[in-house]
Amino acid sequence: MKKNQHIAIAGAGLVGSLLAIYLAKRGYRVEVFERRPDLRSQVLDGGRSINLALSNRGIRALEEVGLAEQLRATAIPMHGRAMHNLKGEITKQPYGKEGQFINSISRSGLNAVLMDRAEALGVRFHFNQRVAQVNLDTTTLTLQQNGTEKTLTFDRIIGADGAFSSIRLAMQFTDRFDLSQDYIEHGYKELHIPAGAGGTFQLEKNALHIWPRESFMMIALPNPDGSFTCTLFFPFEGATSFAALKTADEINTFFKTTFPDAVALMPDLLSDYREHPTGSLVTIKCFPWVKNKTLVIGDAAHAIVPFYGQGMNAGFEDCHILNQLLDQYQDDWDRALPAFQSQRKKDTDAIAKLALDNFIEMRDLVADADFLLRKKIEARLHELYPTQWIPQYSMVTFHENIPYSQAYALGQKQKRIMDEVMQRPDIATTWQTLDFERLVRRIQEA
Amino acid sequence: MKKNQHIAIAGAGLVGSLLAIYLAKRGYRVEVFERRPDLRSQVLDGGRSINLALSNRGIRALEEVGLAEQLRATAIPMHGRAMHNLKGEITKQPYGKEGQFINSISRSGLNAVLMDRAEALGVRFHFNQRVAQVNLDTTTLTLQQNGTEKTLTFDRIIGADGAFSSIRLAMQFTDRFDLSQDYIEHGYKELHIPAGAGGTFQLEKNALHIWPRESFMMIALPNPDGSFTCTLFFPFEGATSFAALKTADEINTFFKTTFPDAVALMPDLLSDYREHPTGSLVTIKCFPWVKNKTLVIGDAAHAIVPFYGQGMNAGFEDCHILNQLLDQYQDDWDRALPAFQSQRKKDTDAIAKLALDNFIEMRDLVADADFLLRKKIEARLHELYPTQWIPQYSMVTFHENIPYSQAYALGQKQKRIMDEVMQRPDIATTWQTLDFERLVRRIQEA
Repeated sequence: MKKNQHIAIAGAGLVGSLLAIYLAKRGYRVEVFERRPDLRSQVLDGGRSINLALSNRGIRALEEVGLAEQLRATAIPMHGRAMHNLKGEITKQPYGKEGQFINSISRSGLNAVLMDRAEALGVRFHFNQRVAQVNLDTTTLTLQQNGTEKTLTFDRIIGADGAFSSIRLAMQFTDRFDLSQDYIEHGYKELHIPAGAGGTFQLEKNALHIWPRESFMMIALPNPDGSFTCTLFFPFEGATSFAALKTADEINTFFKTTFPDAVALMPDLLSDYREHPTGSLVTIKCFPWVKNKTLVIGDAAHAIVPFYGQGMNAGFEDCHILNQLLDQYQDDWDRALPAFQSQRKKDTDAIAKLALDNFIEMRDLVADADFLLRKKIEARLHELYPTQWIPQYSMVTFHENIPYSQAYALGQKQKRIMDEVMQRPDIATTWQTLDFERLVRRIQEA
Repeated sequence: MKKNQHIAIAGAGLVGSLLAIYLAKRGYRVEVFERRPDLRSQVLDGGRSINLALSNRGIRALEEVGLAEQLRATAIPMHGRAMHNLKGEITKQPYGKEGQFINSISRSGLNAVLMDRAEALGVRFHFNQRVAQVNLDTTTLTLQQNGTEKTLTFDRIIGADGAFSSIRLAMQFTDRFDLSQDYIEHGYKELHIPAGAGGTFQLEKNALHIWPRESFMMIALPNPDGSFTCTLFFPFEGATSFAALKTADEINTFFKTTFPDAVALMPDLLSDYREHPTGSLVTIKCFPWVKNKTLVIGDAAHAIVPFYGQGMNAGFEDCHILNQLLDQYQDDWDRALPAFQSQRKKDTDAIAKLALDNFIEMRDLVADADFLLRKKIEARLHELYPTQWIPQYSMVTFHENIPYSQAYALGQKQKRIMDEVMQRPDIATTWQTLDFERLVRRIQEA
């Protein structure tokens, strides 16, 4: 039914390219319009390989389109966090149980694989095409390339064009469109730890490294070539901030005193710091996601901060759910799209909150003895009651069948219970004697 | 200092026109650009006279520019609420103490007076000019009129162009601009009760009439010609909603059963209902309000829902505060504007919340016996301790020296105390024996 529809996707990023595959597999005629040049034909920027954390929700979608195995081969498993203190001492904390891990994967490599597959399925990509206008009444896009414009009409338009979506902007001018964009006070800057001699990893390969420093942090994810991509999350303004670090001396002194073990591995620190842009971090929410025959999806509908490693995974899960609903409604988009937005909105709102909260956990709490004890108690609860007490991080990251909103709500209950547990005097020495069964029962009651 | 500056104001509405007066009085060269035609040259739309509630914050600003007395003559004092139940019985509730009242005033009449005064002070108004582009780096406006464009550069640009501000839209595309626009589920429609024979008022003249119906309401404000402008605040969707009332029968039956006493006075109900547009209601927040040499003010910076009658009053208070800061910083705008936004933002956030809360009070609580008793007890507290316990409505409406954020915070404290008081068994019969002094002391302690 309705399979002869002509569908435009704005944005050839990760979500746009994956969605193109899903829709091409369903038999639709799909065209993708991308503002930038084809990233597959670009020279890679000197060794920088920006990476993302791919986890179960994203993997499920890649499995559905038959790409999971191929991509897994290029990914580096990260089994846990490796926390670096001021002395360079490292504490490790597993992400989940034995065999559970997240995956460091190259954004551009993943994107190229998705585009290649989409093209093999007949999807047509158009690069260097800026969306200049969107008519939501006629489902028409006006596209600009080198100063010339063309106007095309489709059966559906899908905006997968990211946090600063042109499609969402058109929706913003319709009546009763809710929107929020909220920046945090921190920005980010990418830095680099090159591979050691012979492509060796200079830090432990299979971990996500964190230098938690309370009000800010640096992280590092491994790349297949032995290098690590570091990201400094740091306030824009204030006494310790991007604005405050100006001279070479100030920059060097700050890094040497704050991240001594990392600095020893960063020969290009000063030039990286000065040449790489400072990015900002925003949470964007909107509703509705559907206006007439146009939809926004992924970051265009719900951009989040990166601290739970769920931005891409949430976008891929969007595609998975939309595909399921097209199955359920036999490709009746007029039923599938309203169902999609009403089912999905609460989950993307939940992951937005979780991502903001996790920044505090990563930059501050992971260095805290109480916090680590709390994690240890929760790990024991999970070991004893594997389906009844699943730590929130595990629900979000490894349990793709638990919606984000449910992970959020259960996590809140767990937190209330654990807050009480942690009040117990001498909890550090007596936690093994807790009545774990009672704690688990309280999850059902609360 | 810097008085030779050339200032553009976008928007010749209430706030833009008032601000033009303030700035012209300070000696600036001011030009106002308005998208619509000059409202002073337009034929008034058959008897409809949209009115607003002017109260102390707005009056203070009008006094400063020397217009309060002239405008007071055209306003109708409203001393309290007159609640109409389903049987047409009326309960009255004063807004404040003897002599305290709000004022029903014509929006277009007020606007015309402000524009006339601004022009008399040398301000130049340009009508039918659409802001097509704003360059925040060069402080340049591109204006469109009848298909021709002109580009003008100013020393300052001030966006007083309302909830859907073009100036704010330009700011939205700069980095780290926070924005939210949130619609409520209710829309509004204006209806009309004409004057009686010989220009008499068919309802009590000096009151704001409310037909509270729990999930929705109608209100009516008096006009000088003896008519009332009614506004129905009603859900867009659902069993009882704009969407559900379609046929003449449905509309007539709904009004006759829901607002029987009003319907008897509304000969044009059906045509008014069908011909008048259904408006939507939005809260807009953003930050910063200043980018380089451009500012947004009034609804452009902080649009609120109308239920506290404070939208215009807050916008006028913006002008008063900006004027004060220009005094304080001797017209050094580079100091006055940052001070303005950092001082004012918390207050406009507070009135936004208060306005949303007041909808529930107006449509539901005012018909509730407990609520009326609570108001009575608070009125007694205010009588006994006139400066220590001021009801929140009075702080917002009659106490222009209490900032909105302080009124909000004090109101929250009062609410917690009153919630406890109302738990007392037999409070309806025993309230006169309360230890009022203790209650007042708790405000200081809480």
